[in-house]
Amino acid sequence: MLLDIHTGSRVELVDITTQVEEHVRDSTIRNGLCVISTRHSTTSIVINENESGLCSDILNMLERLIPPSAGYDHDRMDNNADAHLKAVLLGSSETVPVIDGKLVLGTWQQIFFAELDGPRHRNVDVTVLGKD
Amino acid sequence: MLLDIHTGSRVELVDITTQVEEHVRDSTIRNGLCVISTRHSTTSIVINENESGLCSDILNMLERLIPPSAGYDHDRMDNNADAHLKAVLLGSSETVPVIDGKLVLGTWQQIFFAELDGPRHRNVDVTVLGKD
Amino acid sequence: MLLDIHTGSRVELVDITTQVEEHVRDSTIRNGLCVISTRHSTTSIVINENESGLCSDILNMLERLIPPSAGYDHDRMDNNADAHLKAVLLGSSETVPVIDGKLVLGTWQQIFFAELDGPRHRNVDVTVLGKD
Repeated sequence: MLLDIHTGSRVELVDITTQVEEHVRDSTIRNGLCVISTRHSTTSIVINENESGLCSDILNMLERLIPPSAGYDHDRMDNNADAHLKAVLLGSSETVPVIDGKLVLGTWQQIFFAELDGPRHRNVDVTVLGKD
Repeated sequence: MLLDIHTGSRVELVDITTQVEEHVRDSTIRNGLCVISTRHSTTSIVINENESGLCSDILNMLERLIPPSAGYDHDRMDNNADAHLKAVLLGSSETVPVIDGKLVLGTWQQIFFAELDGPRHRNVDVTVLGKD
Repeated sequence: MLLDIHTGSRVELVDITTQVEEHVRDSTIRNGLCVISTRHSTTSIVINENESGLCSDILNMLERLIPPSAGYDHDRMDNNADAHLKAVLLGSSETVPVIDGKLVLGTWQQIFFAELDGPRHRNVDVTVLGKD
């Protein structure tokens, strides 16, 4: 299943947990895995706690470790090298178990789509695999 | 299968390779994948070499890149923002192939549970998927 | 399937997209997942854009965040602690959906093997799972 996500800022964490859970519930898979993966090289998937202060901290950490426009080679082509580098650090997918037809997340785990070069229209694949 | 892990320090790498290998051996899956995933937003799964100096280096690198109590927003709620940020960088799961009923790791690869806000009681899912 | 990769430098990004796509096409799986995983603790798998400037930026970012020979404990055993630490940050595998028998990557997504302690002969597992 393909999620459509419209982001509103240059960098932003969008909580997609509900959509992913719905897709797992609608699938016929009872036990297996759910993979959430992005189709874009300037975005990422992150699992962590949805607390507004922490979301700011995550984006600030990325900005501190990988400052924008810091003389990157790729900025001569397209002025978004920092977004690619942040995506490389965070990775392009996350995998979550499915047990008894439900996505198994911990109490403080939510699934985020990380926009790193928005605002844009984006696509995220949700793939559920296992036994009916 | 759910692993129970009791950690003894604030930050710590716990080698869980043997438990994961046993679970793969006990499953009926001959060829496929094994996913090791954490249910906590201040812990992570890491695959690397189990050499004591390197384990210190990994924890020191995280402390250097993400110093504790460095004015994070989330610390007003709960004084562990650095643990969440380290978990975001490392990711919440790792995936390893299963071939002929065995977990396929390289000679210098071991599976670690990374405790980043201990000591605590923690849970790790081990999911094996594939063909009998 | 096991890919054989011969790297030519200490640090290097090798585009393995074509080999992975061929393997997915040759498998009987129509819908599911493809996992690309390394067997080495000083290498990693990265998905991002194959643009030469960006590839330099990725390697430079790793060198900046984790400078070689910076007094690491592991360097007393083997002078490659930085390569292990870079591999820990990047992770050991990536997972990509398979739909209608094809690997589903975005327009600007390519799959790279990241050599961090070469030149060497390396092995990467490509595992395809799903429904025929």
